Amino acid sequence: REERITLAHGAGGKATQTLVEAVFLEAFRNPVLEPLDDAAALEIGLSRVAVTTDSFVVTPLFFPGGDIGHLAVNGTVNDLAVSGARPLYLTAGFILEEGFPVADLMRIVTSMREAADAAGVHVVTGDTKVVQRGKGDGCYVNTSGIGVVEHAWRLGAHHVRPGDAVIVSGPIGDHGITIMLARGDLGIESDLESDTAPLHDLVAALLEVAPGVRMMRDATRGGVATVLNELARAAEVSVVLEEDAIPVRPEVRGAAELLGIDPLYVACEGRFVAVVEEAQAGQAVEALRAHPLGAQAAVIGRVGEAPAGLVLLKTAFGGTRICDVLVGDPLPRIC
Amino acid sequence: REERITLAHGAGGKATQTLVEAVFLEAFRNPVLEPLDDAAALEIGLSRVAVTTDSFVVTPLFFPGGDIGHLAVNGTVNDLAVSGARPLYLTAGFILEEGFPVADLMRIVTSMREAADAAGVHVVTGDTKVVQRGKGDGCYVNTSGIGVVEHAWRLGAHHVRPGDAVIVSGPIGDHGITIMLARGDLGIESDLESDTAPLHDLVAALLEVAPGVRMMRDATRGGVATVLNELARAAEVSVVLEEDAIPVRPEVRGAAELLGIDPLYVACEGRFVAVVEEAQAGQAVEALRAHPLGAQAAVIGRVGEAPAGLVLLKTAFGGTRICDVLVGDPLPRIC
Ligand SMILES: Nc1ncnc2c1ncn2[C@@H]1O[C@H](COP(=O)(O)OP(=O)(O)OP(=O)(O)O)[C@@H](O)[C@H]1O
Ligand SMILES: Nc1ncnc2c1ncn2[C@@H]1O[C@H](COP(=O)(O)OP(=O)(O)OP(=O)(O)O)[C@@H](O)[C@H]1O
Ligand SMILES: [Mg+2]
Ligand SMILES: [Mg+2]
Ligand SMILES: [Mg+2]
Ligand SMILES: [Mg+2]
Ligand SMILES: [Mg+2]
Ligand SMILES: [Mg+2]
Repeated sequence: REERITLAHGAGGKATQTLVEAVFLEAFRNPVLEPLDDAAALEIGLSRVAVTTDSFVVTPLFFPGGDIGHLAVNGTVNDLAVSGARPLYLTAGFILEEGFPVADLMRIVTSMREAADAAGVHVVTGDTKVVQRGKGDGCYVNTSGIGVVEHAWRLGAHHVRPGDAVIVSGPIGDHGITIMLARGDLGIESDLESDTAPLHDLVAALLEVAPGVRMMRDATRGGVATVLNELARAAEVSVVLEEDAIPVRPEVRGAAELLGIDPLYVACEGRFVAVVEEAQAGQAVEALRAHPLGAQAAVIGRVGEAPAGLVLLKTAFGGTRICDVLVGDPLPRIC
Repeated sequence: REERITLAHGAGGKATQTLVEAVFLEAFRNPVLEPLDDAAALEIGLSRVAVTTDSFVVTPLFFPGGDIGHLAVNGTVNDLAVSGARPLYLTAGFILEEGFPVADLMRIVTSMREAADAAGVHVVTGDTKVVQRGKGDGCYVNTSGIGVVEHAWRLGAHHVRPGDAVIVSGPIGDHGITIMLARGDLGIESDLESDTAPLHDLVAALLEVAPGVRMMRDATRGGVATVLNELARAAEVSVVLEEDAIPVRPEVRGAAELLGIDPLYVACEGRFVAVVEEAQAGQAVEALRAHPLGAQAAVIGRVGEAPAGLVLLKTAFGGTRICDVLVGDPLPRIC
């Protein structure tokens, strides 16, 4: 076991998983936390309530298509939405660095308000701490979210069956690549924008036509490949992807190639993966495509029986390769 | 208005209040956030639910009597408890600095677990982000908390009436002074320990004998003086304190004098202020004193009519001075 925290522990891949399981789950273990889902499922009185939390440390704070404020609201809304919950309330915790411009803070807060309005949620409580110059990086935001689960959806990796279709709600990798380009290190100009968006409405549209949805996850840190690896492991199934079917914008493909990273591992902030009963795959994709946030939704693969625990990619050239979990952190601090 | 964030914006006093009202409340405004109470009061289904959040940036991370993990659990438990809620669930968000020792993280997480067990709450969801070396300070923790309000308490500044007794649950300032001493800058050796503790049980003991409790607040950043100033302003009353009656340990008084700060402004992490109907003040103090966490509880003053909005301190020498809100940040990063 490593002795010190590395950037990889924050990347959402193998190192994060190990840390979460060996340190956090080990200490906090209880049946609600144990599934390690996007949101915790609680019962309060007669209500089924979903709760989730995320901290945001993205750099730069402002980028094409959004900013840390949008991300913080949408990210938490999305963890609730893919859990089958209707997002209701948010908390907002700020860690500000001494010297941070109040005007920047106001931009961030205004964009949180806009994102909250768009998602129909309210920020009901918050907290503000300040650290000395050099002990932060401008502004970190934590949002926790609370939603209600109004339907008896049976969602989760354990509902997934061989034969199910694997769907992605839109082109992948836009967010992560946008952040890398915004840092200016690649020296590429592009019109690419982050896909940051609230997914509650798109998810509702999907669930309405396809009650056979088995599970959903938003494809944030670690990207689609990481989500599917966690699924394959948890459900003890295989996932076979068709490379040709995966929607990737040409600009994303190009920049990812320069960065030496597969778009399948690049974070989205407005896309989710859904596993759907095969018979409902067609209507599911149709419903997603009918929504502005799902215009390029597609079936990208199938769940199989063996090799259990693995994600395989059938390449455009007819080959097959293993698409393993993310190791290291090729794109630090993208959310 | 200031153009940049200063440490005072994180101190819990005047600058924090201004920032919260002018920036955060202004943008997020809604009836649940508006009272700016310790916890937000929600209705979910038929249940009354309290929600709160705090980020913790204390330095050093480990100190006599506790550590950032204890603080993070107890702080959030206490904001729920003083809101009349029974604490149930916590979220845990970590922002770790690259290079942070995993052994230190395990100590923090273990102590969170111990504190959670002591308070009867469960960590049900979490998040882990890592920032580059030099962009954090080891470990920041955010905890959000959810509790249920099972009784129809009528708590809040607007229930406070002239004549009510002002009670503090124990000696003040231990936490803030312990942190200052732990930094070693004062070169004082002392046995002083942080008062960090979960208050839910003590609060329950109080409410059981004194249903005439009007309001409670935990006296964290800004200390007892800041809590009472907020009360005086919100309820449009005066508060008159008897200096002699305020429990302060000699070590705290001594160190505070060296630091040039009044213990009334020093943060506690295991004390609360309660305003209680005069007729029940005696039994309230008695109930508090019967509990290990309230052994030195005392009536420290009275609510009056005028001058509305002000806190006055009657000194040991028979004088009276205004005890205004905290300006500046004499003790940065104590929680
Ligand atoms: N510090 C922690 N303590 C307890 N549980 C944690 C912690 N960090 C992560 N988890 C749990 O691990 C699981 C995965 O967390 P993760 O943050 O990767 O999910 P996510 O929020 O969906 O992704 P992202 O943070 O990229 O948006 C969740 O169930 C989460 O509750
Ligand atoms: N960034 C923010 N956004 C929205 N509301 C905020 C923000 N910061 C503080 N608030 C609100 O202002 C009020 C006071 O917050 P504060 O953090 O001082 O209270 P506290 O948690 O009781 O104190 P402490 O943080 O010292 O424990 C609370 O109602 C809180 O919800
Ligand atoms: Mg997620
Ligand atoms: Mg998330
Ligand atoms: Mg707070
Ligand atoms: Mg409080
Ligand atoms: Mg608090
Ligand atoms: Mg997360």
